[in-house]
Amino acid sequence: MSTDDAADEFEIIRHYFAPLAANAPGAFNLQDDAATITPNPGFEIVITTDAIVAGVHFLEDESPRNIAAKLCGSNLSDLAAMGAKPIGFTLACAWPKGTSLDTIAAFAAGLREWVDGFDFPLLGGDTVSTPGPATFSLTAIGEVATGQCLRRNGARPGDKIFVTGTIGDGVLGLLAAQGKLNVIDADYCAFLEDRFRRPNPRVSAGQALVGQAHACLDISDGLVQDLSHMADASGVSIRLDAASVPLSPAAQVALNTDPQLLSTILSGGDDYELLISAAKMPTSLDVLMTEIGTVVAGPASVFTQGKDGEEIPLANTGYNHFK
Amino acid sequence: MSTDDAADEFEIIRHYFAPLAANAPGAFNLQDDAATITPNPGFEIVITTDAIVAGVHFLEDESPRNIAAKLCGSNLSDLAAMGAKPIGFTLACAWPKGTSLDTIAAFAAGLREWVDGFDFPLLGGDTVSTPGPATFSLTAIGEVATGQCLRRNGARPGDKIFVTGTIGDGVLGLLAAQGKLNVIDADYCAFLEDRFRRPNPRVSAGQALVGQAHACLDISDGLVQDLSHMADASGVSIRLDAASVPLSPAAQVALNTDPQLLSTILSGGDDYELLISAAKMPTSLDVLMTEIGTVVAGPASVFTQGKDGEEIPLANTGYNHFK
Repeated sequence: MSTDDAADEFEIIRHYFAPLAANAPGAFNLQDDAATITPNPGFEIVITTDAIVAGVHFLEDESPRNIAAKLCGSNLSDLAAMGAKPIGFTLACAWPKGTSLDTIAAFAAGLREWVDGFDFPLLGGDTVSTPGPATFSLTAIGEVATGQCLRRNGARPGDKIFVTGTIGDGVLGLLAAQGKLNVIDADYCAFLEDRFRRPNPRVSAGQALVGQAHACLDISDGLVQDLSHMADASGVSIRLDAASVPLSPAAQVALNTDPQLLSTILSGGDDYELLISAAKMPTSLDVLMTEIGTVVAGPASVFTQGKDGEEIPLANTGYNHFK
Repeated sequence: MSTDDAADEFEIIRHYFAPLAANAPGAFNLQDDAATITPNPGFEIVITTDAIVAGVHFLEDESPRNIAAKLCGSNLSDLAAMGAKPIGFTLACAWPKGTSLDTIAAFAAGLREWVDGFDFPLLGGDTVSTPGPATFSLTAIGEVATGQCLRRNGARPGDKIFVTGTIGDGVLGLLAAQGKLNVIDADYCAFLEDRFRRPNPRVSAGQALVGQAHACLDISDGLVQDLSHMADASGVSIRLDAASVPLSPAAQVALNTDPQLLSTILSGGDDYELLISAAKMPTSLDVLMTEIGTVVAGPASVFTQGKDGEEIPLANTGYNHFK
């Protein structure tokens, strides 16, 4: 792990980050130019990189613990979508000048929860300073049986569409965090905010889907937009039954009070649930799984259907975080 | 490869970045949540991540082509230091709002030189926007025969110390780019600037060093500081013979004119040459290799010795770019 701020940043790496690498012998205690990884025999490496910027992907005043959660959660969700088992990660941190050691310590403690919780050690990275907002880029590494990874291009006519967990909590949680969700009480707002701030990546479910799902991706751009990614990649038409989309109690109460939120729920992002196309309901998952649509032959498209079969027009199918 | 700026950024990925992934079947044309990599049998994966920030690691007005060079060159240099053969890379780009498509196209064209030159395809990544300076993080992936990677902790008493290429061009090139190197003529300045702006990572040499070098790292923090990294990791004392440090003609003329530059040359960074500890001069390298010191038993330390054997005091052994 390299650094550019002379000795004190070497100290930061040694003190705060090297302990996160303790379970990865190939990380060499973050003291070499790079780390080594050996996939298990018969497995290949899966790799994904996501970046987040203060004020763009997380709120400016977000806690270091929750920044770590967003960073690890969103990348682990990408591994889950490929059916991969996590191996570890590299991390580039650009801290604003003057960032306190307390902030860095809290961030490292936040990472620790994910390192321990998902057997996901730090393998290396870089710590630099920036005159701009805090910016983080995480590269997550996993492994999957060679040739078995889940992709988004395998949906077939006759498949059913499934999702894990509940949909819309991420975008409603963002509205709650911004004080823009006044239709529900404080407990529900707190639940949704937590769902927004702390993704719950479906890592075990993703691995269990290998061999069961024809296509899979994670819902980060919003349900309808991610369905269109699957439809485009697979060359199929997907019919989404809006009424069957699973909602948390908090989201259900919000929607009951303000039916206009349906479009927000279906097109908002940051859900970090898995979207699956499969011949039948997958089994052996450790998470709620709900059928929400069907795959039919036809030009790549998504048709969102309401209770009476009519098409629901969606104002916004591209999620732009909170810019 | 994900994005956060709606459809136009998907277009940017498709148009400018997907062609850089053409030679990596496991990159899935940058359309999936992650990429797959399979190391050759008997090889393990080597991974390294470096970040660069406009105004910190490269000049604010640097050309997109040279930004791509700094990013690829510095990371390939880390792979070289481990003795690894490049496989590919992931890339997170945070572009300032309003960055033109011309800039992005020029950056992608700059990456293309490295993708083609080092058989180093793009595997995935993320494109986001930032209210701050342009920030890039590259994760380079390579492979090395299992258990054979070069590390910095293997220097042994009795070893000789070698470097590839010439030392000090990076820091002198930075001074030249800033108009602070007035002791040499314009052609020499242009040569040094180019050395600063466009690293020449010793990728073939690194691979050839496997089995020959006891320890290796790349010189990014500055020769003396990187020697101290090797001394610390190996638990040895290193004697650097300053007079034998290889200089380019431009650096030699600068030093002849201003002998005070010796300390700058020995402690400046951004050389991206390899620093090697070995029992004897390594062979079969495609680059100049010069013996510059010896390893002796003793507490971890670096002793920099001038022509008459006296110790040269170095004012600054920690390189801070140009902050």
